Amino acid sequence: MTAPLHEERPPRAGRVLPDTQQGMRRRNLARVMHAVSAEVSLSRAAVASRIGLTRAAVSTLVDDLIRWGLLEELGPERPGRVGRPGSALAVSGRGPAGIGAEIGVDHLAVCVVDLRGEVRARAVRHGANRGRAAGPVIEELTVLIRRVVAEAQEAELWPAGLAVAVPGLVARDARTVVRAPNLDWHDTDLGRLLPGDWPLAVDNEANFGALAELWLAAGTPGDFLHVSAEIGIGAAVVVDGRLLRGTRGFAGELGHVPVRPDGPPCPCGSRGCLEQYAGEEAVLRAAGLEPREDLVGLLAERAEAGDEAVRAALRDAGTALGIALTGAVNLLDPETVVLGGALAGLSPWLLPSLQSELTGRTAGPACRVTVSPLGSQGPLLGAAHSVVRAVLDDPAVVAERA
Amino acid sequence: MTAPLHEERPPRAGRVLPDTQQGMRRRNLARVMHAVSAEVSLSRAAVASRIGLTRAAVSTLVDDLIRWGLLEELGPERPGRVGRPGSALAVSGRGPAGIGAEIGVDHLAVCVVDLRGEVRARAVRHGANRGRAAGPVIEELTVLIRRVVAEAQEAELWPAGLAVAVPGLVARDARTVVRAPNLDWHDTDLGRLLPGDWPLAVDNEANFGALAELWLAAGTPGDFLHVSAEIGIGAAVVVDGRLLRGTRGFAGELGHVPVRPDGPPCPCGSRGCLEQYAGEEAVLRAAGLEPREDLVGLLAERAEAGDEAVRAALRDAGTALGIALTGAVNLLDPETVVLGGALAGLSPWLLPSLQSELTGRTAGPACRVTVSPLGSQGPLLGAAHSVVRAVLDDPAVVAERA
Repeated sequence: MTAPLHEERPPRAGRVLPDTQQGMRRRNLARVMHAVSAEVSLSRAAVASRIGLTRAAVSTLVDDLIRWGLLEELGPERPGRVGRPGSALAVSGRGPAGIGAEIGVDHLAVCVVDLRGEVRARAVRHGANRGRAAGPVIEELTVLIRRVVAEAQEAELWPAGLAVAVPGLVARDARTVVRAPNLDWHDTDLGRLLPGDWPLAVDNEANFGALAELWLAAGTPGDFLHVSAEIGIGAAVVVDGRLLRGTRGFAGELGHVPVRPDGPPCPCGSRGCLEQYAGEEAVLRAAGLEPREDLVGLLAERAEAGDEAVRAALRDAGTALGIALTGAVNLLDPETVVLGGALAGLSPWLLPSLQSELTGRTAGPACRVTVSPLGSQGPLLGAAHSVVRAVLDDPAVVAERA
Repeated sequence: MTAPLHEERPPRAGRVLPDTQQGMRRRNLARVMHAVSAEVSLSRAAVASRIGLTRAAVSTLVDDLIRWGLLEELGPERPGRVGRPGSALAVSGRGPAGIGAEIGVDHLAVCVVDLRGEVRARAVRHGANRGRAAGPVIEELTVLIRRVVAEAQEAELWPAGLAVAVPGLVARDARTVVRAPNLDWHDTDLGRLLPGDWPLAVDNEANFGALAELWLAAGTPGDFLHVSAEIGIGAAVVVDGRLLRGTRGFAGELGHVPVRPDGPPCPCGSRGCLEQYAGEEAVLRAAGLEPREDLVGLLAERAEAGDEAVRAALRDAGTALGIALTGAVNLLDPETVVLGGALAGLSPWLLPSLQSELTGRTAGPACRVTVSPLGSQGPLLGAAHSVVRAVLDDPAVVAERA
């Protein structure tokens, strides 16, 4: 593959670290962190060879990273070999950590992930949030956040940021929930309600789920479409390792792709949207079931037990997903479609009709469809890890905040 | 708008210029070229203030760019003012230039664009290419290329690269036409057939059309969906000023988005694709017309004259485009949809039904739809300008080649 002849548009000012000595140093600090982070431990010499800098340059960068508490030395290695013994480096298990939070329709969850990527504290509260005002929900979430932060602090961790996954559309300010129909929240500024003065990022749960897939699931390519469902159907488009967010932050609304343009009306104003065939309510209706908590568990249980109405409802949902995904694959040419969230748990009954539709509608080889190994854990993990990635991507910021 | 907390994935090695002193210098050379290129002329001091470097640093960069023939001095300015008089800089109208070529179903075209963005030579040959083997078509194209290159050389221009727009899918090697149904070319390596040892980029005409829109049309945002048609219907997705190419280079296949999943079969293997409603053959059939050259002209002429069958056919095509675009807009959240190529000429009859569909299917304000001012000139201009941008983006390469 040759590189394209041209960059389509020169990078906008402010989108990348400045191209100065200082900016270069910050980017090189990030390269060191990522190199060490990719391994359990690594010598300075190995870091230097991986990132293409001299060992002397790497040493001064490493010294800073150790002083800021982001890397630690594991002691001398290779003592029997010739030359000055190298000391193996590892990412610190203390210091800055990411707080991830998830506001679900039926639960709240918070976790703390350290720079090594390990979950160090976790809290969950079950209970319906549908129709509740944002204030009391965030108050309950705050109790959970304070609890896990206290626990993390006992382990010498401190919050480098808070990231919150919500089942709705979030503005590009990364704090305002523009529309979360299943919570009945509209234009709700969560930044005003959430605790702490940590850097904050609120994002759609499908986006955080996709990022978790990108960062944590082995073998995930850099170009994929992540489809998930809680109540609505959301998707996240990852291109070249980056989320495609859209002009307003609303990209990935797969649930409102027209599947049958003259089909049943959808609350969005259109007709025959994917959600009218594969959304929770549509599947419930088709299967003749009543709404209740843990719907996915119920559907999976019934389908497993051979309930033909439930199996047919899931089969039809798979067909509708296949039609909508044919359009998405034609537009985006992703390497893979990943079924995540609730869809992962229902994949045994969705996948056959989904794949048959996708294959039948594609001239060449159809796009691969895989099932997320993270399932419903994706959004929470993605949120916490997004904070950790921010530290790895610009470690110098920690020096200013620590 | 706050920046996201994190970079989703650290840049891959090799995708950007290396982060060394040398790489930084090359990027700064590009910044100088882009700053001067954005104006008719600019002083060194103005360049320095725009790109945030010291005047001394800019002067050494400018000296190189002048020596390589990329910038020229217009002579002293502000002679009455205090201090050393600055000499205004302008992008050179001699030196490296981009050769753009277009292989159309009914024509071949070549042009030369200088670094200032001016078309300096042009050649066109009309005649059907449908069903002809690639060899003879490229031979004819080569005659045109040699003619415009000779003309350019008389004006002290030399080819910095050749970019070729084709009506088909191009592999990410930027030389192999994987599939061009309307030429009946399959897996055809144009790199082997084309003349010259210049850097080469073959790309889909919709992609070059979209790039022309991005670079040349005033007010085009960085996020848009460009829809065009020659015989098939193609689209190009531009996100944050960059083309989304897809894993295999096949992104933008809007023509095969299912509009009515049980509709008429499509040669692609699916049913009810957009092309079955809005492609040339479908519109011809619906309007009761026979295929001929300059179909767009014929349709526009008939519609203008009040032919109700033609108007109805275009109205229905607009409806189908609106349905397919609703899905695309939900997935991508672009700022604008731009109708380019042949569609631009037919927009008076397509737009009303297209927009009514898009508006009726959108909860909030519908995505804006505009008509390309470049129309069918887009792909050829985009191709030539892609070579020019490559020089502006990394001027040091010219020093190695000149």
